[in-house]
Amino acid sequence: MLVYAGSASKYLGLKLSKILNIEYVNVETRKFPDGELYIRVDKEPLNEKALIVQSMYKTPNDYLVEYLFLSKTLKELGAKEVIGVIPYFPYARQDSRFKPGEVVSLQVVVDLLEKMGTDKVITVDMHLHRVHDLNEISKIPFVNLSVMEDIGKFFMKKFGNEDTIVVGPDEEAEQWAKKVAYILNVQYTILEKTRLGDLEVKIEKVEKEDFKNKNVILIDDIISTGGTIEAAVKKVKAQGAEKVFVGCAHAILAQTAEYRIFRAGVEELVASDSIPSPYSVVSIAPVIADYIKKFLL
Amino acid sequence: MLVYAGSASKYLGLKLSKILNIEYVNVETRKFPDGELYIRVDKEPLNEKALIVQSMYKTPNDYLVEYLFLSKTLKELGAKEVIGVIPYFPYARQDSRFKPGEVVSLQVVVDLLEKMGTDKVITVDMHLHRVHDLNEISKIPFVNLSVMEDIGKFFMKKFGNEDTIVVGPDEEAEQWAKKVAYILNVQYTILEKTRLGDLEVKIEKVEKEDFKNKNVILIDDIISTGGTIEAAVKKVKAQGAEKVFVGCAHAILAQTAEYRIFRAGVEELVASDSIPSPYSVVSIAPVIADYIKKFLL
Amino acid sequence: MLVYAGSASKYLGLKLSKILNIEYVNVETRKFPDGELYIRVDKEPLNEKALIVQSMYKTPNDYLVEYLFLSKTLKELGAKEVIGVIPYFPYARQDSRFKPGEVVSLQVVVDLLEKMGTDKVITVDMHLHRVHDLNEISKIPFVNLSVMEDIGKFFMKKFGNEDTIVVGPDEEAEQWAKKVAYILNVQYTILEKTRLGDLEVKIEKVEKEDFKNKNVILIDDIISTGGTIEAAVKKVKAQGAEKVFVGCAHAILAQTAEYRIFRAGVEELVASDSIPSPYSVVSIAPVIADYIKKFLL
Amino acid sequence: MLVYAGSASKYLGLKLSKILNIEYVNVETRKFPDGELYIRVDKEPLNEKALIVQSMYKTPNDYLVEYLFLSKTLKELGAKEVIGVIPYFPYARQDSRFKPGEVVSLQVVVDLLEKMGTDKVITVDMHLHRVHDLNEISKIPFVNLSVMEDIGKFFMKKFGNEDTIVVGPDEEAEQWAKKVAYILNVQYTILEKTRLGDLEVKIEKVEKEDFKNKNVILIDDIISTGGTIEAAVKKVKAQGAEKVFVGCAHAILAQTAEYRIFRAGVEELVASDSIPSPYSVVSIAPVIADYIKKFLL
Repeated sequence: MLVYAGSASKYLGLKLSKILNIEYVNVETRKFPDGELYIRVDKEPLNEKALIVQSMYKTPNDYLVEYLFLSKTLKELGAKEVIGVIPYFPYARQDSRFKPGEVVSLQVVVDLLEKMGTDKVITVDMHLHRVHDLNEISKIPFVNLSVMEDIGKFFMKKFGNEDTIVVGPDEEAEQWAKKVAYILNVQYTILEKTRLGDLEVKIEKVEKEDFKNKNVILIDDIISTGGTIEAAVKKVKAQGAEKVFVGCAHAILAQTAEYRIFRAGVEELVASDSIPSPYSVVSIAPVIADYIKKFLL
Repeated sequence: MLVYAGSASKYLGLKLSKILNIEYVNVETRKFPDGELYIRVDKEPLNEKALIVQSMYKTPNDYLVEYLFLSKTLKELGAKEVIGVIPYFPYARQDSRFKPGEVVSLQVVVDLLEKMGTDKVITVDMHLHRVHDLNEISKIPFVNLSVMEDIGKFFMKKFGNEDTIVVGPDEEAEQWAKKVAYILNVQYTILEKTRLGDLEVKIEKVEKEDFKNKNVILIDDIISTGGTIEAAVKKVKAQGAEKVFVGCAHAILAQTAEYRIFRAGVEELVASDSIPSPYSVVSIAPVIADYIKKFLL
Repeated sequence: MLVYAGSASKYLGLKLSKILNIEYVNVETRKFPDGELYIRVDKEPLNEKALIVQSMYKTPNDYLVEYLFLSKTLKELGAKEVIGVIPYFPYARQDSRFKPGEVVSLQVVVDLLEKMGTDKVITVDMHLHRVHDLNEISKIPFVNLSVMEDIGKFFMKKFGNEDTIVVGPDEEAEQWAKKVAYILNVQYTILEKTRLGDLEVKIEKVEKEDFKNKNVILIDDIISTGGTIEAAVKKVKAQGAEKVFVGCAHAILAQTAEYRIFRAGVEELVASDSIPSPYSVVSIAPVIADYIKKFLL
Repeated sequence: MLVYAGSASKYLGLKLSKILNIEYVNVETRKFPDGELYIRVDKEPLNEKALIVQSMYKTPNDYLVEYLFLSKTLKELGAKEVIGVIPYFPYARQDSRFKPGEVVSLQVVVDLLEKMGTDKVITVDMHLHRVHDLNEISKIPFVNLSVMEDIGKFFMKKFGNEDTIVVGPDEEAEQWAKKVAYILNVQYTILEKTRLGDLEVKIEKVEKEDFKNKNVILIDDIISTGGTIEAAVKKVKAQGAEKVFVGCAHAILAQTAEYRIFRAGVEELVASDSIPSPYSVVSIAPVIADYIKKFLL
């Protein structure tokens, strides 16, 4: 097996190649003055499995096109199997046609990967809504790993679990909150969210819970503009929470998200390195490497 | 037939719908704060031919992804045929594997269009090198129209043809120079170019020609960083040229191209609107509309 | 006098140097990989007047910093006088403190120019609101030229003035409409605008006018998102206007402006080259050169 | 004293306000569709000292203009003193006129701060070359703090100091290497660097040192494209170094820097939060807060 890393994830590719002890192949990518990409790999994957590592955040279209170019080419150059490692999988939100005439972007992206030679995709804590398993809409297998246990372990090691409760800001976050709570061996609960627009949400009252004197760990999969977390922090603080921590898999932190979160009074933000940021203190490399070791090597 | 225009070419789409007298369907495209696209069309193309107009310059990856999303979706929504109007076709340069391990981007882009439901592509003065006809490498038909006659007519109308010679800066430009010269009813010749790097070229001496007291119209398909034109202008001026004009189909004008060209002493730059710029004085809409009227309506 | 052009206006600088027959000095500007600018001029302006040509649109902060670096440096290197030619002058909108705590950006920009060695500023059709003359708030003289007569002449030459009326979309546009109407020798009128938000405006009914069978030339100084023009076009069309043309000094054309304007049914958009675009068919170079010839050479 | 944070450093501003227990004033900054900034502060600093926190990395011109707007305005609104906290100070490289006609950007930036009302500047590990103390060229006092001791403590706590040597990749880095070595209570040495271009450097042989079986901590102030660190890592590895760690104040990490560093075999990169990145594990807030507490409150 050979590791090829796209320009979004060169360092993650290096980490995987080290943990797995497999060869890292240099991929040269540069942009011409007219905005077009030039891509060349140092070694062809003839009769080898090829791992393409590329997280698709911030400039997802650029990273997607680079990925598709690589996938098609490695297949053509003889790769036995092309495996996409796409820790942050883009366009997950648009998984249905909510209004007539809408593009169901997730379906198109999934089809693009398959048509360009990818045989299998490994992703991490993908935000699924209406589609419950990507395998329902994809012809190639998708493996959705989770970094939440490692995030739980990080909290346990750094802060312990005294007087702690894990909170999901909405129903969809229950799956992540549960995993972290299990590792910490504490209770968890969820809040009720109503979305008021692109940037604002309302968090409803939580009758069954009282956060008095408790340390709250808010857990979500993605933090984009920070609106949900901001509202949730205010809610639990209003209900007596002592200290509030936040954990998430993917810290997009668009616009003023960072500021909104910390202004609301969060002590610490813990995220994975699927999207590099100052909060990337938990790596997704081990959980991905484990899967590959068990099932693909 | 319905016209759908991507965000690169809304105005061109409107022009085509007017000339052809066919319905223009509004396409809503916006970017979420995390960089992902949202796309929705006002009217579904059930049992209709759908024209997608999208030139792919400057941020070609963004425009390509938007196009692929639209193409796949319109096909899915019942379009009888999806016809891509892609006046500036990107990635034409990388049409072969020059070094081992290189991505042959042109082939991948052509495959992407086909796999995402496009049935036919109309482009304009595409820069073909080693591949002489895109139909050799594409499963769907490609029509390569030319705006060069209209550029010739523009020169004729504005400056006349007295003491004029048309010049192609290198062998590949002969095809364009010939067309313009024919319209102007004057001679043409070509220079010899050697590329010295990404940004610099050398134009060799032209023994057979003397430009003394002549007005030179330099014709090329694409002006990117302007290096070729700059060198050619200097050459013909050194050989006595009076006034130098430049005509091209696609004015990318990357980096300091504009400055290099005019600093070298060019009187006027005439380009098409495949890539909007202050030099887009000749429209590609008529030549495209003509073709559609004759063969597709 | 020597002409130095910043990276926003190299071509305009060349035009001015040609018309005025004064030396054009090459200015090298490049960006380091960390985003910082490197700037160097080929010739020092010892005991000469130095003209710095730099329009400040689209990325106004980058262009402003480049200008300030040049201005301070040319003064330091011995320029007798530093004259800023800033055809599109940025930050004109924020000319008062509407709410407590606001930055009055226009005042800061004006002060920056003066403190960095600029002795005089030439601008074109600057959008003044509460401040009626920049000289009220500036320690250095400001000359506000107008390209509106040249825009009027362009319309006259290309379309004539039969059954034509010039219309300003709001009260502030009266000054520009008047100039164009005078050149065309036709009537003008103004509409009443109410701003409903950043992007939407409402144009009130015009009781005194009836546009039946008339060709309307809408004139404004700046077109930014196109909301005002879109609303005005709809209004005059609803009141019977035949064909609608638009003329403006500065075509910013942010976001989907181009599309909004033409979708509303505009025949043609005519703008100056203060901001280069496909509509820059009238040059500001002659009016600036005239002024310089008369008063500064 | 009140804390105002620019859009580059909102989180750092919050940290400082917490440590110093002084009020944090909300600053609203947004961009209009035409690229211009709108800035408003929630509270005027009448008769108070105003701290403006703004690191100037990645898009230094945008951040500089925002800073200048704030500084001028806070002074105008009655601030007793305006103190700029600019952890990463831009344009430090261009501190002399190396070739005739060059802009000495550092001097211009320093002047801009002073002219726009700033009374004092606090920065961190500023990269000084020919100018040894900014106070030589500035009319307002500059305080250059160092985060190097905190970086030394971080290494000591996490990895200890067994068999460790601190290395500066060139002569200029001696000042930083010395501080870190002192905290770790180990030896330090420096290498000899020759710059071969914008992106490549050569590290000369180090005769006096042998790194056999030693852990090397490479220390520099800034990592930009990573060329220096890459060359230094290869050098010390070739001379027998066991593990190589890297510490720096400002991790710009332009282009492929991250990849170059880790590809060369670096175990871990430790940087401050002057420029937020996944390597910002040491905060500059304590050292800045200490100084303010002692001398400015």
